[in-house]
Amino acid sequence: MRGLWLEEKRLAFRDDLAGPPLADGEAIVRMRLAGICGTDLELLRGYYPFTGVPGHEFVGIVEEAPSAPEWIGRRVVGEINAACGTCATCRAGRRTHCPARTVLGIRGRAGAFAERLALPLLNLHEVPAAVPDEEAVFTEPLAAALQIQAQVPLRADQRVLVLGAGRLGTLVARTLARTGAEVRVAARLPARRDQLRAAGVDAVAPEEVLAGSADVVVDCTGHPDGFVRARAAVRARGTIVLKSTYAGEAPVNLSSVVVDEITVVGSRCGAFAPALDLLAARALPVADLVQARYGLARGLDAFAEAARPGALKVLLEP
Amino acid sequence: MRGLWLEEKRLAFRDDLAGPPLADGEAIVRMRLAGICGTDLELLRGYYPFTGVPGHEFVGIVEEAPSAPEWIGRRVVGEINAACGTCATCRAGRRTHCPARTVLGIRGRAGAFAERLALPLLNLHEVPAAVPDEEAVFTEPLAAALQIQAQVPLRADQRVLVLGAGRLGTLVARTLARTGAEVRVAARLPARRDQLRAAGVDAVAPEEVLAGSADVVVDCTGHPDGFVRARAAVRARGTIVLKSTYAGEAPVNLSSVVVDEITVVGSRCGAFAPALDLLAARALPVADLVQARYGLARGLDAFAEAARPGALKVLLEP
Repeated sequence: MRGLWLEEKRLAFRDDLAGPPLADGEAIVRMRLAGICGTDLELLRGYYPFTGVPGHEFVGIVEEAPSAPEWIGRRVVGEINAACGTCATCRAGRRTHCPARTVLGIRGRAGAFAERLALPLLNLHEVPAAVPDEEAVFTEPLAAALQIQAQVPLRADQRVLVLGAGRLGTLVARTLARTGAEVRVAARLPARRDQLRAAGVDAVAPEEVLAGSADVVVDCTGHPDGFVRARAAVRARGTIVLKSTYAGEAPVNLSSVVVDEITVVGSRCGAFAPALDLLAARALPVADLVQARYGLARGLDAFAEAARPGALKVLLEP
Repeated sequence: MRGLWLEEKRLAFRDDLAGPPLADGEAIVRMRLAGICGTDLELLRGYYPFTGVPGHEFVGIVEEAPSAPEWIGRRVVGEINAACGTCATCRAGRRTHCPARTVLGIRGRAGAFAERLALPLLNLHEVPAAVPDEEAVFTEPLAAALQIQAQVPLRADQRVLVLGAGRLGTLVARTLARTGAEVRVAARLPARRDQLRAAGVDAVAPEEVLAGSADVVVDCTGHPDGFVRARAAVRARGTIVLKSTYAGEAPVNLSSVVVDEITVVGSRCGAFAPALDLLAARALPVADLVQARYGLARGLDAFAEAARPGALKVLLEP
């Protein structure tokens, strides 16, 4: 089959890929649309030593499902962590942290930037008819954005600062604004600030952020300096939410975290059901975040466009 | 007056110190006992650029209190942060984080390693008669240990690992054991492990700690590698509590905090009332943590003893 192949920090388009293997309890899904995320770009930079087809945001059609043929033909999105289901972590209800898990397009499992992918049936969610492909493909990042609220309860009187106005930062800002909290985005590009303000979201330049001015800061910058900026912006006893993953370590003044009693919360994947509900209710616009669409054969151009500063969502289609 | 003087990372005993100034609403306290803490040792290493009398753990007798003479003669301990009381942070109830605060023996206020110190009357707590000086001097570090429970609710089914069995780690382990949680201490020195076990606290060597084996890890090591060890020991979605302050930055793999959705909680000072209640109820032994007592004139010897690996509490007396 055709698809993108990542090996030793190099990405290539190939038309000779083997189809994904079909394991017990799994389904083969034909990809209709897939989205490029910051983690995909970081995989290229060596964030995690993955070899294979990358990609974990997708919408597609179930083609094979031997153990549950009623799924064939359904339009689905899929949670990306395939857990063992039997270890202590899984039994404690933390399946997305199963130490034996594979992760679609990230760890031990071929991903979505190809004609077909495989996932456990347990991971699949049928997409409501009202949600077009261009929105359904946002289910995974939208779930990841909603995970912040699941971890850090927000009140309407709180000042929340989002660092970064790329595809993740914008989605995070929109979901947080629904909590009633006072949300502000620090965006480097003037055009992005205008776009945010036009959508009713307060936006400032990074240098306008006052020290200690936020109760909660969400780092969506994708860069190690995001933590330093978040640390400067958060008030004493405030909370920093980290959403970005990137290669390497960051120098952190941990004593300042102690003295100011800061809480730092790592936040990754979220549950799909609330994200799909929001999309089905037309309660959270996402289609305007699509910046471009490319065929798989032009995948390298797609990655280059997605890597540009401030880029929004770049989609791949078969 | 006599006391210790810190200047440019050098400590000296002096007998020509000016007494502390008496500001409105403040009291002069004659020191009876003072304790050396890890932060005092770190001040010497340049953790914070403080010049003056160090020391913030003390018990003493009120000598002057012009605005409230009924305090004169009372035996007191004192909260160390002197807040302005009027800024937005103070009005929000976070007085210990007042940006204009002085901190006894740490920031802008002469400390307890001298014959006399000054603190606002608001900061003083009378010591119940049942609590001897040798225990009252532990009020400040005991309050700091109890602050962990105030920030991170613990359940009896949680596995809590304390890294470090020095004066702070031991106190933290004893307070956490009272929550019913399964508390274990990683202690480098065999003698310290024996001592902990004799007191009914589970103790292991650091190399015996299994990766991902703790729900909550409290870093009381006082060293930058404490975070790396805590990160290795905590399970996915677990919590790391940071109690140590030290000079410099630590390299932190923030992406791993995101992927494993770790929560990191900086924890500093706590409220004195619960600590004094515990001491008054004889519910938490502390006197066995006293390793040595020195007169102020031998303050440098006292600091040298307190700096030895695994040292417990070294006290200073006038």
